[in-house]
Amino acid sequence: MGRAELKLEDIFYPESIAIIGASSDEKKEQSGWTGTLLNSGFEGRLYPVNPKATRILGLQAYPSLKDIEGKVDYAILNLTPTLVPKALEDCIAKGVKVVHIFTSGFTEVGNEQGKRLQKEIHSITDRANIRLIGPNCMGVHCPEGGISFANLPRKEGPTTLISQTGAGAARTILYGSGRGIYFGKAVSYGNAVDLDSPDFLEMLADDTKTKFIALYIEGIKDGRRLLTATQKCIIKGKPVVILKAGLTEAARGAVTSHTGAIAGSEKGWEAFFAQTGAISVHTLEEIVYQLVALQNVQRPGGRRVGIIGRGGGPGVIATEICEEMNLRVPPFSAAVRNQLERITTAAGGSMIRNPVEVGVGRAGAQQGYIEAFKILAESQEVDLILTHLNPEAFILYGGVPEWINHSIDALLGVFKTLPKPVALVLPSGETQESREIVQQAWTRCSEAGLAVFRSYESAANALNKLIRYYEFKDRV
Amino acid sequence: MGRAELKLEDIFYPESIAIIGASSDEKKEQSGWTGTLLNSGFEGRLYPVNPKATRILGLQAYPSLKDIEGKVDYAILNLTPTLVPKALEDCIAKGVKVVHIFTSGFTEVGNEQGKRLQKEIHSITDRANIRLIGPNCMGVHCPEGGISFANLPRKEGPTTLISQTGAGAARTILYGSGRGIYFGKAVSYGNAVDLDSPDFLEMLADDTKTKFIALYIEGIKDGRRLLTATQKCIIKGKPVVILKAGLTEAARGAVTSHTGAIAGSEKGWEAFFAQTGAISVHTLEEIVYQLVALQNVQRPGGRRVGIIGRGGGPGVIATEICEEMNLRVPPFSAAVRNQLERITTAAGGSMIRNPVEVGVGRAGAQQGYIEAFKILAESQEVDLILTHLNPEAFILYGGVPEWINHSIDALLGVFKTLPKPVALVLPSGETQESREIVQQAWTRCSEAGLAVFRSYESAANALNKLIRYYEFKDRV
Repeated sequence: MGRAELKLEDIFYPESIAIIGASSDEKKEQSGWTGTLLNSGFEGRLYPVNPKATRILGLQAYPSLKDIEGKVDYAILNLTPTLVPKALEDCIAKGVKVVHIFTSGFTEVGNEQGKRLQKEIHSITDRANIRLIGPNCMGVHCPEGGISFANLPRKEGPTTLISQTGAGAARTILYGSGRGIYFGKAVSYGNAVDLDSPDFLEMLADDTKTKFIALYIEGIKDGRRLLTATQKCIIKGKPVVILKAGLTEAARGAVTSHTGAIAGSEKGWEAFFAQTGAISVHTLEEIVYQLVALQNVQRPGGRRVGIIGRGGGPGVIATEICEEMNLRVPPFSAAVRNQLERITTAAGGSMIRNPVEVGVGRAGAQQGYIEAFKILAESQEVDLILTHLNPEAFILYGGVPEWINHSIDALLGVFKTLPKPVALVLPSGETQESREIVQQAWTRCSEAGLAVFRSYESAANALNKLIRYYEFKDRV
Repeated sequence: MGRAELKLEDIFYPESIAIIGASSDEKKEQSGWTGTLLNSGFEGRLYPVNPKATRILGLQAYPSLKDIEGKVDYAILNLTPTLVPKALEDCIAKGVKVVHIFTSGFTEVGNEQGKRLQKEIHSITDRANIRLIGPNCMGVHCPEGGISFANLPRKEGPTTLISQTGAGAARTILYGSGRGIYFGKAVSYGNAVDLDSPDFLEMLADDTKTKFIALYIEGIKDGRRLLTATQKCIIKGKPVVILKAGLTEAARGAVTSHTGAIAGSEKGWEAFFAQTGAISVHTLEEIVYQLVALQNVQRPGGRRVGIIGRGGGPGVIATEICEEMNLRVPPFSAAVRNQLERITTAAGGSMIRNPVEVGVGRAGAQQGYIEAFKILAESQEVDLILTHLNPEAFILYGGVPEWINHSIDALLGVFKTLPKPVALVLPSGETQESREIVQQAWTRCSEAGLAVFRSYESAANALNKLIRYYEFKDRV
């Protein structure tokens, strides 16, 4: 038999789910699949399957899949590896559309039993009208569908995450939630015996709710298909951010022991990125920062950055990091300097050449900060503005800790009115007081749609790649 | 006249300080120099100078320097720039040994008046028996001497910071205090009209309390002297970490507008680092991470890293980052794998090839974690162990938030008994719960002398440079 046609609904919005291998120990199952799906707000029918239980967490339990009277769209297999092939046959017999094999212990282990079992489930799936997520993965997260693999934020957003790793997927979703990036859909697909990254990409190219796509890939069965599917998404205006893990030699070995994948050569992946315009990143944090830039920074007209902030040394460091990331920090003309000089003198700052130093830490100095933004935004000399705040400046300048809130007030009041994009660098606080204030500031900025980064490096890196993405789009 | 001989005591342990330009507004002066020195625990004589006040913050105030009856070792000038030359002449007349000019508005401004005034104070100092810190800088921080330029941690440690920037110095001291790095001495020296980085280095080479030295440099008057002074420190077993700001073109311009310094060429600085073995870093955070590695990681026998942690994807990413930073992550022999397999199977992990995945998130799994450390430390196959914990794993694995404390207990219980160095990567938490637990864990690890990093990149980067430093030492 051929493969069933893949529908977005079958993966992310099943109406009924069976949990094969639900624990009869309710305390344990509270944090198992049944408890997790109940917590995720799943509103369809949920069928825990366990031969020794009649009820699990308030739901009727079933001795086996075939004892369930209604249809089952989706099944989660949480069994010891040797029991998986038989369970898969049961799913096929029951007419289940999608099976998520949570169980690990297949090719990734590297022993004979694992390889044999993976081959067996591959061959069972291959000749049946069923689609498979996994094995060795966390499966699906979709707040709208009421489905998740952990107690994750349920706020929806325009980004979809496709991730071979499960721990990494949860971490990325959590990171994102602290930075204004919410995942409307996510899937962790592990060893990819059947469904692989191109399958998900092809679906998402047509998903109206998905505007940005992030991938964590260890290996790929069909590179040509991945290339075509990625191009399709980008042509449809959906940027694709990819963390391709396992590009160095030992990392390739680590990949094999993780999901059993073949990582592929560095050269091949370089060509892939050059040809598709997908944005290459190297850590989970970088995925999130790149999404922050994509979602919250309007397209800059070029690579010229104006830098505004308190602190001379930090300004110098910021300049250097921007330049190392292929951004430019041009010195201002005499005309712009004259405008700036009036403000910085009044505000206690001392640099007007670019970077600009203004005394945002002092009481009443916020007006100077705002004016500096307006001058740079209206000049023809920069394409975007990067501003940095030092959470501990209040210690140095003897002000009150809350001064940072006043600076954020000023920034949020002005940034949307400017004809140039703005990004903020605000490091984590280093004292108890500053940590809390920074956390609140991050939340306020993220919710207001202002791009915030924790370091100059992460900001400059994401902005460089953002601009490169648009430059690619112009060329193709 | 020639220059007075420079003594460490005159800079960091003055017995009497005059504050020329103390404010008669006590509320303002509370966060000014008088208040700051009182808060820093200065126990010598403190003389606020202001022609309009008789008492300031409980101290007798003096109309002018010459009205002070006793000797004055050290003077801080907080005056408008045009008044500085006259005040400097007064200091010379009074026999002050060291003057710190806090005032800015000299060469760094780029205008004629600034240049003229700086030239003037240069020529005054040049022909007198006095030493000058600044202008345009924060001056001295030395908890033991009861002197500081801000409300900074007063705990002492074996590191000294020499920094041209003031805001950066305060930030570095604060960053350090959250990571177990305490600065026994620090100096911000701004435009360096007289005292420059080599002067401080030469003093510190012989300071028994200084074991590690960090520098933030924008420019240097005498490169040959800096080279000799750096070599002297390194030969005496004191590693020198240098952030040379302003290596790119725009950053060189920014340097000029910050401290008026000439930044020098990238090539010249490359040669400097190659010849001295000083450790080159690029951000203030990196200074602190490098000090963490120097202070808390015993010398590894080589570049082979064993990685232990929860999460397959994160393990793959960690491997790749280590390799990109010139570390090696060799696959283990069958013998080591067999030992590990028993542990990981019992603990719910799945990778034994290097990286090792152990189920540290689960209750009772800490024993497996400890065993994995012992196996790697006793094998001949790695030189150091890098372990990573995911603060949000409790969300994914349904455990209690405190599991991380159990993992830290296990780690702190074992790391000092091992014959190999250990470093931990523990990212900031992303939820309210995890943030607090991570903060406590950071403090516990730092106080116990375990090297902790917030990211794989910062860890691998600092460890690479640590090993390179020792390799250099072996060659010379």
